[in-house]
Amino acid sequence: MTLMSSWVESANSADTDFPLNNLPYGVFSTNSLEARCGVAIGDQILDMAALEEAGIIILSEDPVFDVPYWNDVMEMGPETWRALRNRLTELLQTDASEQALVAPHLVPMEDAYLHMPMVVSEYTDFYAGRHHATNVGTMFRGAENALPPNWLHIPIGYNGRASTVVVSGTDITRPNGQLKAPDADVPGFGPCKRLDIELEMGAIVGTSTEMGQPVTTAEADEMIFGYVILNDWSARDIQAWEYQPLGPFQAKAFATSISPWIVTKEALEPFRTSTPERDFELLPYLQEPGPMLYDIDLSVIIQPDGGEQEVIARTNYKEMYYSSAQQLAHHASSGCAMNAGDLLGSGTISGAEKDQRGSLLELSWGGKEPITLQDGTSRSFIEDGDTMILTGHAQGDGFRIGFGACVGKIAPAVSFP
Amino acid sequence: MTLMSSWVESANSADTDFPLNNLPYGVFSTNSLEARCGVAIGDQILDMAALEEAGIIILSEDPVFDVPYWNDVMEMGPETWRALRNRLTELLQTDASEQALVAPHLVPMEDAYLHMPMVVSEYTDFYAGRHHATNVGTMFRGAENALPPNWLHIPIGYNGRASTVVVSGTDITRPNGQLKAPDADVPGFGPCKRLDIELEMGAIVGTSTEMGQPVTTAEADEMIFGYVILNDWSARDIQAWEYQPLGPFQAKAFATSISPWIVTKEALEPFRTSTPERDFELLPYLQEPGPMLYDIDLSVIIQPDGGEQEVIARTNYKEMYYSSAQQLAHHASSGCAMNAGDLLGSGTISGAEKDQRGSLLELSWGGKEPITLQDGTSRSFIEDGDTMILTGHAQGDGFRIGFGACVGKIAPAVSFP
Repeated sequence: MTLMSSWVESANSADTDFPLNNLPYGVFSTNSLEARCGVAIGDQILDMAALEEAGIIILSEDPVFDVPYWNDVMEMGPETWRALRNRLTELLQTDASEQALVAPHLVPMEDAYLHMPMVVSEYTDFYAGRHHATNVGTMFRGAENALPPNWLHIPIGYNGRASTVVVSGTDITRPNGQLKAPDADVPGFGPCKRLDIELEMGAIVGTSTEMGQPVTTAEADEMIFGYVILNDWSARDIQAWEYQPLGPFQAKAFATSISPWIVTKEALEPFRTSTPERDFELLPYLQEPGPMLYDIDLSVIIQPDGGEQEVIARTNYKEMYYSSAQQLAHHASSGCAMNAGDLLGSGTISGAEKDQRGSLLELSWGGKEPITLQDGTSRSFIEDGDTMILTGHAQGDGFRIGFGACVGKIAPAVSFP
Repeated sequence: MTLMSSWVESANSADTDFPLNNLPYGVFSTNSLEARCGVAIGDQILDMAALEEAGIIILSEDPVFDVPYWNDVMEMGPETWRALRNRLTELLQTDASEQALVAPHLVPMEDAYLHMPMVVSEYTDFYAGRHHATNVGTMFRGAENALPPNWLHIPIGYNGRASTVVVSGTDITRPNGQLKAPDADVPGFGPCKRLDIELEMGAIVGTSTEMGQPVTTAEADEMIFGYVILNDWSARDIQAWEYQPLGPFQAKAFATSISPWIVTKEALEPFRTSTPERDFELLPYLQEPGPMLYDIDLSVIIQPDGGEQEVIARTNYKEMYYSSAQQLAHHASSGCAMNAGDLLGSGTISGAEKDQRGSLLELSWGGKEPITLQDGTSRSFIEDGDTMILTGHAQGDGFRIGFGACVGKIAPAVSFP
């Protein structure tokens, strides 16, 4: 597949995140427009509520685009998703017959505020990157016991907190929590000292299942509406003290950031790739009938307060051991009902090399090997004022399917009552 | 406090769960009425949507009772909650001047179907019963290491799954999952063989906090709208294989049952009691300015298919080491935003004695000491066709504040695609 040509000129560049091949879904507002659904095209946003009001795109009798979320569209199902994408392509391609009708409903991206693209029903985070799990396991349990015995058989996951999933650009306040130094008798309470990112992809569930209804991996793949980049902010010191025996809780609950544009599964179709060879054959309910992972280049960038941006890691989504479809099939396997707007974090994505690691915990090897930045300062973990920027795109032939950026700047901890 | 007298005669019995002192909030429908808010009084339900339509109770310009959830009322805050309770008491007390206006809006409970009383925003489950944690820890790690080192300092919790919280009476399908026998090399997949209950109370958060906003225990106590009985159904064998290192996931995700009536904090006011003496002083953010636990008698009943009900355990909510207010203050301490409709499971409530244990895991000591039922059969865990019934009430002087029952019957596992 090559670049599809659009009458929106900025969409025809080889390095735009948002060519006509992409058409990701977001929510925006401007100084004069209330938050509503929009589609990114080049450096513009197509105002879907206006298109709907003008009768140019109609999905149902009741309007679905004049609201600040895509959940209603998700619930309409894959046939509607494909029809919508086809219609958008028809309207935006070069020589589109309706160009004059559509053009007035483009809003320059630079004039827009971006919001959460959906209401997050529930948020689940997985642990499906083999290099990440091996690195963390080696640090905490030694190289001999790096991977837990279940890891190669089951997509390990836990429920996260939906109420603090925020859109890129939202400042992240350093969390407070219980901390206990290894040599202390009792814990204290105060600001996290080992604040970290986790570079992940987020899969957005688009259609629902009933309680008690399992799904195959093929059905799970069909249920996924699209993907975002996700930063599962983590307080390593809070986590170390709290996580036995029931897993991470407040160490993760304070914030999770996502990139503002939902890149649809259709846009990513040319970039499908298979999960890796297995040490153990997976149980039948987890086996995939075809490639369900994607080749997406990812970068971690740090920007110290007032300083320059600097790439500190590069990796790829195809490093994952389990796909989102496998994770979703596992999630529903017990009879757990899944809903439109459920967000599934992939787990931290690290590659085999040292500069391919998706967390500072791994990059600084638990703080023992701080990384040195271009400004001469070093980092084991994130400092107040640092901005963390996660970016990603799938590289096509002369075009790319970009996700935009997932950005968060760290504000100091609040003082406690 | 003694029994408050009502013109609804059935509410004046010493053994009704629902005297005028109680006034719990639920959602009901009948063959002719759509699901709506109702208040239990004796063997009747007061139709709140009808009272609102008749102008007898008005909380706001827009109707709030003609919907199948109490979340809108919760969000109005504690002053409205108190005003509503005062108005209901005025309308239902003996010699109420408006009796003739109200009486037509009573619906016999036996004609009603009960539904979930609220939309569950998110569900968090804690692990705050000392006897339970000690029993489980002793079974899995030995008596020397029964309580994890953090347990006496921090209310251990994890995020559960909101999409499968169901109202009492909903059948529970035995979950499937990955199971690995200790001597097996690899896991298999199939129906859970160690299905269990967890007897808990559920606290319902009524007002919200912003992301980044901590609350004191006093503020947390004020935020709680009411309590239900909760059964955190658990698949012990699925849990054993999956839970390291990130905690329980599919072992708990298939179902959680709650009793249908939200018993308000105001109704429980006379039964406040303090959390126990501490081995370690709690950190300041967890200290309570007054008693925040409640004296509530609880029972676990089993009813084999076609057989008789039999009490297998009795305990009390006052056994908890941490109150719901402490749990909520801890939950918000990291900056985690809390919302109206959030459900906080207390953790399994067990007493010191063998017949005071709130799970079959403890009652049968991991299956090593099966309990014998009156019908001559024995149970280590729950069998298909068994109905598990959790009940509870606070005992006053000649009256009780009852919760009704939290009931679930086990249906066989579904066969897998």
